[in-house]
Amino acid sequence: MDAFMQAAIDEARLGHEEGGIPIGSVLVHDNRIIGRGHNRRVQQGSAILHGEMDALENAGRLPASVYAQATLYTTLSPCPMCSGAILLYGIKRVIVGENQTFMGEEDLLRARGVEVQVLHNDNCVKMMKDFIEDRPELWNEDIGV
Amino acid sequence: MDAFMQAAIDEARLGHEEGGIPIGSVLVHDNRIIGRGHNRRVQQGSAILHGEMDALENAGRLPASVYAQATLYTTLSPCPMCSGAILLYGIKRVIVGENQTFMGEEDLLRARGVEVQVLHNDNCVKMMKDFIEDRPELWNEDIGV
Repeated sequence: MDAFMQAAIDEARLGHEEGGIPIGSVLVHDNRIIGRGHNRRVQQGSAILHGEMDALENAGRLPASVYAQATLYTTLSPCPMCSGAILLYGIKRVIVGENQTFMGEEDLLRARGVEVQVLHNDNCVKMMKDFIEDRPELWNEDIGV
Repeated sequence: MDAFMQAAIDEARLGHEEGGIPIGSVLVHDNRIIGRGHNRRVQQGSAILHGEMDALENAGRLPASVYAQATLYTTLSPCPMCSGAILLYGIKRVIVGENQTFMGEEDLLRARGVEVQVLHNDNCVKMMKDFIEDRPELWNEDIGV
């Protein structure tokens, strides 16, 4: 297991322990985590703090040159909002835990030149499957359904 | 002047008075403003609180049915991140103050069925032109350049 994806999974688990939606993300630059995050819809009543957005926010204000050389790890395929943030900042590489329980905008990202790798990680799939089964209405709210 | 676009401009001006980037937005439902926001990069050191994102965040957690009948007003053409948020939540109508100083993802929004109206508002253009001339490095940071 890639240590950075493990860190994203750890964030997802932390979110779940807080009663939230188990999706986590880390932003990596120069082989170092510069931002960690997890979904905070429940914890902060947030409509915009998906895991990836929270990682980007926690990384703080950065010059374009850092984003251009950064990799974003996320336990789940990135939704349109998070994919848009990836495009805004010109992040060139995204590592996705799984896209079986939710398929995000991977095609759009690839069409815009972003390298998207999907790990098909069983832990990520199980975490989301269990959560969706447990809290379908909360999950639907998070993806605008 | 449409009262809702005026409210978005008021938000932009408030942001500018705070030393921030003058972009504002309001989310309207049932002819009523349910979320107001402005760019908070400077004020909160935020990488994700563009005007539209701030309005969505301040509107709070909402069911999909509200977003589907809401209109987002923004003083400036929405960037990829904000456009992605519009797509995530299925907001069907976006009113844009201007797209002369920055062209966002209007084509993508229209291709996905969102109605995008551009007002070509002179006040919005002037506000951004003055700001970009005054703080080009800050503006570039905000759009990932």
